[in-house]
Amino acid sequence: MPEFNTASEEVPEVLTKYRELVDASLKKCLSSDSLFVYDMLRYCMGWADDSGEPIQGTTGKALRPSLCLFACEAAGGRLRDAIPVASSIELIHNFSLVHDEIQDFDETRHHRPTLWAVWGIPRALVAGNVLRIIADISVEGLRTSNRAKPIESVSLLAQACLEMIEGQYMDISYEGRIDISLDQYMAMISRKTGALIRCSLHIGAELGNVEESVVNVFKESGRALGYTFQIRDDILGIWGSETITGKPVGADIRRKKNSLPVVHAMSECSETERKALLDVFSRKEMGDSEVELVLDIMESNHTLKFAQELADKYCENALDIMESAPLNNRTKKDFSELAYFLAQRKF
Amino acid sequence: MPEFNTASEEVPEVLTKYRELVDASLKKCLSSDSLFVYDMLRYCMGWADDSGEPIQGTTGKALRPSLCLFACEAAGGRLRDAIPVASSIELIHNFSLVHDEIQDFDETRHHRPTLWAVWGIPRALVAGNVLRIIADISVEGLRTSNRAKPIESVSLLAQACLEMIEGQYMDISYEGRIDISLDQYMAMISRKTGALIRCSLHIGAELGNVEESVVNVFKESGRALGYTFQIRDDILGIWGSETITGKPVGADIRRKKNSLPVVHAMSECSETERKALLDVFSRKEMGDSEVELVLDIMESNHTLKFAQELADKYCENALDIMESAPLNNRTKKDFSELAYFLAQRKF
Repeated sequence: MPEFNTASEEVPEVLTKYRELVDASLKKCLSSDSLFVYDMLRYCMGWADDSGEPIQGTTGKALRPSLCLFACEAAGGRLRDAIPVASSIELIHNFSLVHDEIQDFDETRHHRPTLWAVWGIPRALVAGNVLRIIADISVEGLRTSNRAKPIESVSLLAQACLEMIEGQYMDISYEGRIDISLDQYMAMISRKTGALIRCSLHIGAELGNVEESVVNVFKESGRALGYTFQIRDDILGIWGSETITGKPVGADIRRKKNSLPVVHAMSECSETERKALLDVFSRKEMGDSEVELVLDIMESNHTLKFAQELADKYCENALDIMESAPLNNRTKKDFSELAYFLAQRKF
Repeated sequence: MPEFNTASEEVPEVLTKYRELVDASLKKCLSSDSLFVYDMLRYCMGWADDSGEPIQGTTGKALRPSLCLFACEAAGGRLRDAIPVASSIELIHNFSLVHDEIQDFDETRHHRPTLWAVWGIPRALVAGNVLRIIADISVEGLRTSNRAKPIESVSLLAQACLEMIEGQYMDISYEGRIDISLDQYMAMISRKTGALIRCSLHIGAELGNVEESVVNVFKESGRALGYTFQIRDDILGIWGSETITGKPVGADIRRKKNSLPVVHAMSECSETERKALLDVFSRKEMGDSEVELVLDIMESNHTLKFAQELADKYCENALDIMESAPLNNRTKKDFSELAYFLAQRKF
């Protein structure tokens, strides 16, 4: 299953109920035909093939804009107030993916060649920048609003975007190192992945009509949810099913990605295992037998169990925070369904 | 002379009088020490060496923020209202340079190694993105202003930024082609270089207290000035003095850059010359003799004369537009000094 199938029973309602609204808004943002780069962007979003022909069923989860609209609705806000910023968040997320893929030389995403793999680095780099500026323009309308909250939300988004990019920088600066501590790893993912997920819920709630303490509930549960999301992502990057994720088992080991399982194995293993890991990670290329060796060391140190328990812990943490807020049961139920999904998802 | 020497007699007052204000604001924007990427940015701005130690005398012209502050003052505005957006424009300009250098594999700027040449493509790419988001954050304060004009200026800047990036895309998409028409070339530079220069004057005037027709004068003379600037840049890229520009004669020919001289030579040359040009530009690498050949063909077609006359024509055009406005003589004199400088500069 290459695409994200929203009809699947597994998918929580938060990820399906706003989908049409989000897609319509994003498609409007990227409707220009003035330059071929817009065809590239429609390819990137999963709406078109590499010749610009419309296709279906290759889009991502749209997690962040869904979180934003969910929080807005749960906080009693009007969805139409949150749509521009929700779209902007998704465009920024995609901008970060396009540039990340260049940095990591990733050739596929969701089973499709990445932008730079199809059109080369210079065009992909510029295409990413176009996404970024369209994200800015998408929230232009909010700036001229007379209400303080929409303006504040643009500011929150800019700060989250800076954090995200700082996190990308930290990730790059960790490359080639195998002495990253759990604290350093958590600090990196809280920026690189966490900032945008957290601000999706934070901004959504900010656009509603709830007290600051309730806005804070969304923000803090968003923080925990960001950890859950990324840790589960790291797990899938190593043990995920190839037919679902599009990546072979151990893919992130082969790419020497700074992921939680590597951080854990490195800190927990024996001296002999440590030497073996150092040897394998210092090689230029990793073959199947080296990946196997790393997987074996992870198994003997119960790395998968540790990582999943950490993802689950943050999931429970997110739920506990949300539970404390004066919100209706439907909201709490939707949120818990989503949080469990993120902690246990297969894709 | 590697650096831009503001003490030189040649430099017009518009480029010196706001310099301290601009530098102080930019340094404040980039003062963080939270990550090494900020040292990279201070290197990029010419304030530090590659180990983060402060240095002097390697900064650029700061043309765009100077234009913005000049227009604001000329239109009776308060400089302090224009400083955030002037800084933002300069940061966006530097962001575009950092990514441009990656796209073109340029290894030096102002006689110094470029960011990617020192720290590699992934870090330089992220560093560019950090500049871009700090540019956004620099104008955050304006959004919460109660006055419509500052908010409008942020919107104008976002649009100019989109145009600039679209221009970069056009430039890349022209690569390897040698059938670019003069019209296509002008459309490309009006976006890639022109958008930011035009909006510097436009926004500056918008923040003043003049009628819309006078704001338009700044905008339209900015449009002409952008052409002048880029055409002179193209001339320097081929015939500039190596000791001043840091690039050998014919540098932009060797890089096969889509510049006006190439566009002109291609459209004006004889059939025999055309075949020679096609042959030379289809080669993977260009040696000294090939560059010489292209220079000879340009000479026989009076390409330098054509290009300089076009730069001068737009310079006169900018001055004519400015002359028509109800502005004081000092403003007009400062502007004409600047425009002539841009049309004839050696660096």
